Amino acid sequence: MNRLFFASDYASGCHPEVLKRLTETNLVRSAGYGLDELSESAREKIRQACRAPEADVFFLSGGTQTNAAVIGCLLKPWQGVLSAATGHICGHEAGAIEAGGHKVLPLPHREGRLEAETVRNFLERFRADESRDHLVEPGMVYISQPTEYGTLYSLRELTELSGVCREAGIPLYADGARLAYALGCPANDVTLPDLARLCDAFYIGGTKCGALFGEAAVFPRRGTVPHFFTMIKQRGALLAKGFVAGVQFEALFTDGLYERIGRHGVAAADRIRAGLAACGCPLLLNAPTNQVFPVLSPAQEEVLRGEAEMTFWETLEDGRTVMRLAADWATRDEDVDLLLEAFRRCADLR
Amino acid sequence: MNRLFFASDYASGCHPEVLKRLTETNLVRSAGYGLDELSESAREKIRQACRAPEADVFFLSGGTQTNAAVIGCLLKPWQGVLSAATGHICGHEAGAIEAGGHKVLPLPHREGRLEAETVRNFLERFRADESRDHLVEPGMVYISQPTEYGTLYSLRELTELSGVCREAGIPLYADGARLAYALGCPANDVTLPDLARLCDAFYIGGTKCGALFGEAAVFPRRGTVPHFFTMIKQRGALLAKGFVAGVQFEALFTDGLYERIGRHGVAAADRIRAGLAACGCPLLLNAPTNQVFPVLSPAQEEVLRGEAEMTFWETLEDGRTVMRLAADWATRDEDVDLLLEAFRRCADLR
Amino acid sequence: MNRLFFASDYASGCHPEVLKRLTETNLVRSAGYGLDELSESAREKIRQACRAPEADVFFLSGGTQTNAAVIGCLLKPWQGVLSAATGHICGHEAGAIEAGGHKVLPLPHREGRLEAETVRNFLERFRADESRDHLVEPGMVYISQPTEYGTLYSLRELTELSGVCREAGIPLYADGARLAYALGCPANDVTLPDLARLCDAFYIGGTKCGALFGEAAVFPRRGTVPHFFTMIKQRGALLAKGFVAGVQFEALFTDGLYERIGRHGVAAADRIRAGLAACGCPLLLNAPTNQVFPVLSPAQEEVLRGEAEMTFWETLEDGRTVMRLAADWATRDEDVDLLLEAFRRCADLR
Amino acid sequence: MNRLFFASDYASGCHPEVLKRLTETNLVRSAGYGLDELSESAREKIRQACRAPEADVFFLSGGTQTNAAVIGCLLKPWQGVLSAATGHICGHEAGAIEAGGHKVLPLPHREGRLEAETVRNFLERFRADESRDHLVEPGMVYISQPTEYGTLYSLRELTELSGVCREAGIPLYADGARLAYALGCPANDVTLPDLARLCDAFYIGGTKCGALFGEAAVFPRRGTVPHFFTMIKQRGALLAKGFVAGVQFEALFTDGLYERIGRHGVAAADRIRAGLAACGCPLLLNAPTNQVFPVLSPAQEEVLRGEAEMTFWETLEDGRTVMRLAADWATRDEDVDLLLEAFRRCADLR
Repeated sequence: MNRLFFASDYASGCHPEVLKRLTETNLVRSAGYGLDELSESAREKIRQACRAPEADVFFLSGGTQTNAAVIGCLLKPWQGVLSAATGHICGHEAGAIEAGGHKVLPLPHREGRLEAETVRNFLERFRADESRDHLVEPGMVYISQPTEYGTLYSLRELTELSGVCREAGIPLYADGARLAYALGCPANDVTLPDLARLCDAFYIGGTKCGALFGEAAVFPRRGTVPHFFTMIKQRGALLAKGFVAGVQFEALFTDGLYERIGRHGVAAADRIRAGLAACGCPLLLNAPTNQVFPVLSPAQEEVLRGEAEMTFWETLEDGRTVMRLAADWATRDEDVDLLLEAFRRCADLR
Repeated sequence: MNRLFFASDYASGCHPEVLKRLTETNLVRSAGYGLDELSESAREKIRQACRAPEADVFFLSGGTQTNAAVIGCLLKPWQGVLSAATGHICGHEAGAIEAGGHKVLPLPHREGRLEAETVRNFLERFRADESRDHLVEPGMVYISQPTEYGTLYSLRELTELSGVCREAGIPLYADGARLAYALGCPANDVTLPDLARLCDAFYIGGTKCGALFGEAAVFPRRGTVPHFFTMIKQRGALLAKGFVAGVQFEALFTDGLYERIGRHGVAAADRIRAGLAACGCPLLLNAPTNQVFPVLSPAQEEVLRGEAEMTFWETLEDGRTVMRLAADWATRDEDVDLLLEAFRRCADLR
Repeated sequence: MNRLFFASDYASGCHPEVLKRLTETNLVRSAGYGLDELSESAREKIRQACRAPEADVFFLSGGTQTNAAVIGCLLKPWQGVLSAATGHICGHEAGAIEAGGHKVLPLPHREGRLEAETVRNFLERFRADESRDHLVEPGMVYISQPTEYGTLYSLRELTELSGVCREAGIPLYADGARLAYALGCPANDVTLPDLARLCDAFYIGGTKCGALFGEAAVFPRRGTVPHFFTMIKQRGALLAKGFVAGVQFEALFTDGLYERIGRHGVAAADRIRAGLAACGCPLLLNAPTNQVFPVLSPAQEEVLRGEAEMTFWETLEDGRTVMRLAADWATRDEDVDLLLEAFRRCADLR
Repeated sequence: MNRLFFASDYASGCHPEVLKRLTETNLVRSAGYGLDELSESAREKIRQACRAPEADVFFLSGGTQTNAAVIGCLLKPWQGVLSAATGHICGHEAGAIEAGGHKVLPLPHREGRLEAETVRNFLERFRADESRDHLVEPGMVYISQPTEYGTLYSLRELTELSGVCREAGIPLYADGARLAYALGCPANDVTLPDLARLCDAFYIGGTKCGALFGEAAVFPRRGTVPHFFTMIKQRGALLAKGFVAGVQFEALFTDGLYERIGRHGVAAADRIRAGLAACGCPLLLNAPTNQVFPVLSPAQEEVLRGEAEMTFWETLEDGRTVMRLAADWATRDEDVDLLLEAFRRCADLR
């Protein structure tokens, strides 16, 4: 693949510091299933970064799997999960939550964010409904940080959402597939300890943030989900060589690598945003993290699809196309330059 | 972990040739989900090794996941899967098949092998049962090559089993978690093309055979399972960075590495078997592949558990213990020497 | 319960002609599971009424069960079911479809009806979506006749919807929980043979239409769902005494009883609608079948809830309440009179 | 069906006293879903008969459904259910438990009974197994009273089994599909209050014991299963006209009808047993309730299948056939006479 590649943030192997650590430990003989010392060291570093010394931490291989396992284990059989209608679990996971027996209850959103007021109103209507014993009970709230639109929950927003959940006695879970690009974003004010304090579960994304694969599911309070080890085994999500994920997270949480990765990706996206603004290309919305959503005319789309790999996002009512560009730890300055040149060349195509 | 480690064959990272290939391709930008050129190259090499040019090949991250996905997709909702009672899916996958809605129908075995006659008799009894519409229909046959006891199906046995299945119109599926140790075993006469010809699905194990993780599910006849891509996405088994698995299988199927790995593990196990025989330690059974099952007196068990990591297998009626020793591509001669010394030292303990 | 009861159409036992037939056959000794002669006679009468001589007909005990069984068997594991957002399966079946592993894909509606154009557009967008292999595939269409709002599909509308489904190669299924009140409605132009011709599956409701319990699932084309007998056994929906359902449907399809039941319920509802109009009580919408949806001021609601059993439907934005009144085969003229008197007495309460 | 019918105990409608009560209440207008006064009266009578004033009681339509709902709700997702290998849930419910996601763990039995020692040993082996986190955890025990072989647990046996379960902290559940024929059996010493005291859940069978349909699931301790109402709705097992089941159980628990029904069925079976003994026909085992298992030569089988409806049970190794004869509340003396005459006529056929 020689072309400019901005279609996703999971297009390269792993960050060189991760690869170095994998290479160093490659011939160590370890116990399986994450019961080894390297995995324990990674878990301990994550607990410290989250200031959650009691946290249960598990490494799984991918995001859809992690969402399905955590949500499936937090919900009771008669419950469903509340999510912004744009949530990844709503549409883009091939029905994984439903295949596990649970309904996703979609709610209106603001630029991908679920607002506390929206959740509160839904819960109140549910409790007031005389036929509620015939309905799916809302049993937890799912959010993404950053959201699928690259936007961020502020600390105030997350605190409110957490308050609504705690008042209702239902868990709050945050999908952190791209969490590095929140933590490394200048506009962000939600830290890992904040997530650990305000959420009942969240995951720290590895696949899109510097690892070959792997996500770290964190339950800040020990014992939140009983027998989670057996449950992920049952779901085919328990890695025999758990240490391969553990070693990678150990590297990611050494010397601030995880946030450095985030900063690099966001800085690259900021350069793209600035360049697009300079050549008059509108964006779908003003998201501050590693994803950029330019709005293209049909003529621009045709030209630019030939120049760079991008992801189709949606078609607007006026016929224009929204594309998604993603930057990550591996994005090179010279590729951003070439991309912006391509945009500039067709700035006047309508 | 400084101690002698024979507890499993998934205790090290990946074979150096695999790591080299991962390192070389680490910064290549690729499409996700296995739709990249490196994965396609790996699939093509597997098709050639199997002499199955039309085969559908998918990379998944682990064995339980692969078994659950393949079996769940091959069975109809009213069907169950026939397996030797010792089959991995019967006991050691935390109920993954049942969690997917299907019954495992356990059958008697011979040293871990399911015999054609046993399957034929079961199918005949089912068809003759007047209440069969109230029963779980046997919808496929699951075997392992090598078996959980390290034994092998001969080509004759596999051919007979395949014949029974085809006559009944039900698929035959082989779990190849340790397939390298069958292919690399002098006693083996079942080749990859044989498996592709006689089975409707099988998987080529990577996790236990030289990869960091990964199994290659092979359906020799194209289109055997419709929408398998979406099904593994739904099950959380679709790797975003599919190329990380693809690159590893590309290395494993280059220059005969997969069989070399198998030969190394079997040779190490052969040395262990010879050494145990020399010091009079009995084995549970005479399996020719990379697993060895010594029978220990309580006193021997106590001593040897302090010397080496082994896996508890079962307690015999006479009170002696069966342990499981596994060798693999990374087993070193000097460690085998130290292990055999330890056994010799306690040969007379009863 | 001495009070006026208009809360549901499943509040009495069975129509006297059904009870008579149950009594006559009570001591007949029959085979179980619907394999008896009385059930076969009922199935044959249904086939004749539908002019579908090849139809597979099964008796199940309730509507949620029938929907879950039929939908679960018609969908492939990677598919979901399209439904009006007001469809009974969307909200009021406690997540039964999702518990069976499938997503309900809700679509906009017109007074409870799903329009052909809406379905066509959704299917086109799905097919054009570049990430469709990561999405739930729309695998069938669910409608209700009459709808949850008491409205009816016209023959033209149903023909169009059927055309869209057949073009797309996906089945159309009609929930006929209240089908008698469609067939017995003067405004209706969709006959049983029309349903059998245009749908791939539908059910003829018994529970709300004169039976103690029971629904007849009809697949007009033989073999539409293989092993449906075993599937309903697995779902706990196979009645050991299938003949008790069979006998009831035999009675319902003798001497036009099923349509007579419908006509009675609709006539009672028509009287209610006329009476409400006369005293100025507005309706939510103008539905022609056995359900009536008066809009009440808070003061009216308080008074009327004390006079009659009704079902809360929803709260309008202006603070008024919509209630649901249901008539059925057992609704008595004198009760309608008393109900209308009660409405008249509080006609001026605001 | 004019022939002698001994094939099952679910071949007639309902006991005349039940039918009378259904007829009397047929036009009463009641709330749905078992929330009516007649159902509450039935529940109260059952609580009194069980001396379990706090019991939760629910009416479901059939046995497979009740087993699947109760077991599915008592088990955690990582658990399976222990059962005698002959248990109804093991084989004859089309995989309903597995379709709900749980493994049935079959154990050896004695004439259909599961012994306390067998369960204790299994639980101990499980707890001692070093790989138990990869296994299905035994989460409850399922038994049938009477068993599938018509045998009975004695009070001593049930007390021991209950003790093992309570020590292990897992629930004990009894399938009472034919419970009337235990309660009405002279050899029985387990009363309803015993069941309520020793089990965590059980069901009182209606379908085979005098009702048109219906089983009463009893949880002696209130709140044993949270949201069971919603769970049975989700499983399609909530009857809209719950009162139709309620009225029947109200009749069954009035004036000792339930035990009278049991006594009648057992007395008829006793007459059959005595008659078979008199003409030298051996039985598979000596069960004291309403089922009889004669062992027939091939020649006898051929003749007798032409004379009476019976159920095929199994083929013995010596080629003889075991049939199952069932008596019930509706079995007539003259039919027993005719049946015994037929047996006598072919007593000498070998």
